[in-house]
Amino acid sequence: MSETAPSPLLELERLHPADLADRLQRFPGPDARELLGRLPVAQAAAALAEVETERLPELLEDLPAGRLGELLTCLPPNDAADLVQALPARARREALTRVPAGFAASVRALLRYPEDTAGGIMTNRFIALRADMTVEQVRELLRGRAQDERTEDIAYLYVTDAAGRLVGIVSLRDLVFRRPDRRMGEVMNRDVKTVRVSDDQEALARRFEHYHYLGLPVTEADGVLVGVVKASDALEIARKEATEDMQLMVGLSGEERALTPWHRAIGRRLPWLYVNLLTAFMAAFVVGLFERTIAAWTALAVFLPIVAGQGGNAGMQTLTVIIRDMALGELAPGDGRRALLKELLLSLANGLAVGLVVGVVGWLWKGSVLLGLVAGVAMWLNQLAAGLSGVLIPFGLKLCRVDPALASSIFLTTVTDVAGFFFFLGLAALAMRWIGVS
Amino acid sequence: MSETAPSPLLELERLHPADLADRLQRFPGPDARELLGRLPVAQAAAALAEVETERLPELLEDLPAGRLGELLTCLPPNDAADLVQALPARARREALTRVPAGFAASVRALLRYPEDTAGGIMTNRFIALRADMTVEQVRELLRGRAQDERTEDIAYLYVTDAAGRLVGIVSLRDLVFRRPDRRMGEVMNRDVKTVRVSDDQEALARRFEHYHYLGLPVTEADGVLVGVVKASDALEIARKEATEDMQLMVGLSGEERALTPWHRAIGRRLPWLYVNLLTAFMAAFVVGLFERTIAAWTALAVFLPIVAGQGGNAGMQTLTVIIRDMALGELAPGDGRRALLKELLLSLANGLAVGLVVGVVGWLWKGSVLLGLVAGVAMWLNQLAAGLSGVLIPFGLKLCRVDPALASSIFLTTVTDVAGFFFFLGLAALAMRWIGVS
Repeated sequence: MSETAPSPLLELERLHPADLADRLQRFPGPDARELLGRLPVAQAAAALAEVETERLPELLEDLPAGRLGELLTCLPPNDAADLVQALPARARREALTRVPAGFAASVRALLRYPEDTAGGIMTNRFIALRADMTVEQVRELLRGRAQDERTEDIAYLYVTDAAGRLVGIVSLRDLVFRRPDRRMGEVMNRDVKTVRVSDDQEALARRFEHYHYLGLPVTEADGVLVGVVKASDALEIARKEATEDMQLMVGLSGEERALTPWHRAIGRRLPWLYVNLLTAFMAAFVVGLFERTIAAWTALAVFLPIVAGQGGNAGMQTLTVIIRDMALGELAPGDGRRALLKELLLSLANGLAVGLVVGVVGWLWKGSVLLGLVAGVAMWLNQLAAGLSGVLIPFGLKLCRVDPALASSIFLTTVTDVAGFFFFLGLAALAMRWIGVS
Repeated sequence: MSETAPSPLLELERLHPADLADRLQRFPGPDARELLGRLPVAQAAAALAEVETERLPELLEDLPAGRLGELLTCLPPNDAADLVQALPARARREALTRVPAGFAASVRALLRYPEDTAGGIMTNRFIALRADMTVEQVRELLRGRAQDERTEDIAYLYVTDAAGRLVGIVSLRDLVFRRPDRRMGEVMNRDVKTVRVSDDQEALARRFEHYHYLGLPVTEADGVLVGVVKASDALEIARKEATEDMQLMVGLSGEERALTPWHRAIGRRLPWLYVNLLTAFMAAFVVGLFERTIAAWTALAVFLPIVAGQGGNAGMQTLTVIIRDMALGELAPGDGRRALLKELLLSLANGLAVGLVVGVVGWLWKGSVLLGLVAGVAMWLNQLAAGLSGVLIPFGLKLCRVDPALASSIFLTTVTDVAGFFFFLGLAALAMRWIGVS
């Protein structure tokens, strides 16, 4: 905690806002709040804009409304809206009375959009130009703006008509390169790629990765320009989203991190552990159906977990590839059938390779050709079930309009356990009847 | 295939290069190559620059060296280097004789850097200025360059000293806003964040996400500026990297996609399935040690997969959180111990909650308090083993300088299977001895 002592404060002041935010997030709540109170207001605001959303409520707790108003005013409206969103409803209203009226209106407008849409990610501080302005006029305009506004994020300028509809785009580069007397209408690019204010954030990220733009303009349904999304914001969200899907797969919350306090993590993990338990009982029920078979041939109990576990592993390979491709938006409609065919062929081949080894080991270990045969064939069939359900489960969840990643590994292991036990013990029971044991 | 017919070619010509690349990747090899041959050279080159690295060798196959040379010359050196890299060694040398000598040297310089470092991702086409140049002079310089070079990617300009060492950075915005007579030395920002040419791509992505820059300059150890990395390139790689780690976890190649041909996928999947099989035999060996216990009490066989499977699920939750945080670079040194403590507490609590249910079900289903007690306690212990190994396995792999994600789910289920079987059957054997059954 020595970093909160008076003398290193000066050192903290020289840090990049993102680095300062890191420190704030590592301090315990009270120390972080004390530090926030002692930083110059512009710096505290910039650092807060970089803090993870989940940590904001704790840091903003007990902040006097006056100080909060000052902090908000230092930020662009979209960052301010993120801070306001982290406040309880009453503090939210109170805070917006402490900022200039125009700014408050701008923030309120942004708060209307759901967080996971283009509207929720965009900034509404952009520069709109008229088509008849010259390069020289626009340069003058920007020179004036540079004095009183945060212009750091500008990459493109937007040309709108009288109704505010987007008609073209001009890059800063154009302003530097083009002759001063050229008009925006001549200089601008009319083939503008836009996103709708309601577009979801994953679709947005895919657009940025596909086209490599620095920013994309956001329009309402009627074509009116309402904001701009930056590539870095969209791609950072996309990276988190894609990996969150991997967490959903195993029954975790997408927001959990390695250092999330255990009492907060338990709320999401335990329910899925219970779901898994329920499915494990289903699998156990199948084993229970064959208790007499096992009593007569206990070597079966030894091979039981091999058949089921190996199916689970193969199925997880398939499931992970599918979920990842879905998360990265790389699957087109109709690709499901091709993926299913691939996994069918792959699990036929893998199943043969794995089934053979299990068969030979079963035969040599227990000295029973029959055990080897039963284990090998059951393994082969279970690899097939694993590969197919690894494709069908996520596509099925998607069809039901549920996140295809959601707890899919739990559903998958249900299939591989139930099918594995059923194939193995069912074949064993048949085999025993055939050789006349039971 | 109707899209390759003569008339829609005009339509294809109007597509964005990224969209054109998508089409090329969806066509079978021969059709894609035919289409490439018929597109105007600049457009074919731009589309090739957007094609996934894995698909390039197929598309470039049989391309005459002359045409290849034309294509390369249309691209910035880093994109050209990516294409050249996809060629067999002989074709590579041949192709570089067909482009202007300066350009070939530039491409060769880039080929020296490993693909997964800043040097491998950067472009070496940047604009370096002297500190005594005025804003007006630089504007003139850029206006001239705009004619003969691809300048689309410029976001910042770099100021270097006589030895080529980076001394400051100027944004395009500065050129628009600042008075024409100001010198670069006055306008530039001296506090430049740079990356080393040898920095690894994950470290690079973390820097971009942390600081939100549009581009970062790349220097050699002596401070000489050698290239620039764009945020969109670094972040796209980062997104793929982070999700690739999830694939490594289950024993997949990071490059496999849902539609990778099955005969190419099998080479990476099958070896790990065999490793998993080996570990399954280890677990089966533990079960084998207790075959007499199971023969005397077959209800144990029914509960066996529940204890092991539930441990596997809990362990995967822990493992996934840790791998994801490692992939996103969010774990600082020393965080491992805190994560271990969290998982310890979490699995004690979860284990108790799950163990109780298993115990009660075991008691009610089989009418045996002892079975319930053995199953419940074994479950509790196995949840603990799962939580701890979910942290220790990835940190252990990292300590051994192996990718912490590599096949970690296979190692994890080995622990939860072996420990689960051992706890459950060991406790059962003890209990039976205690009540005098065996």
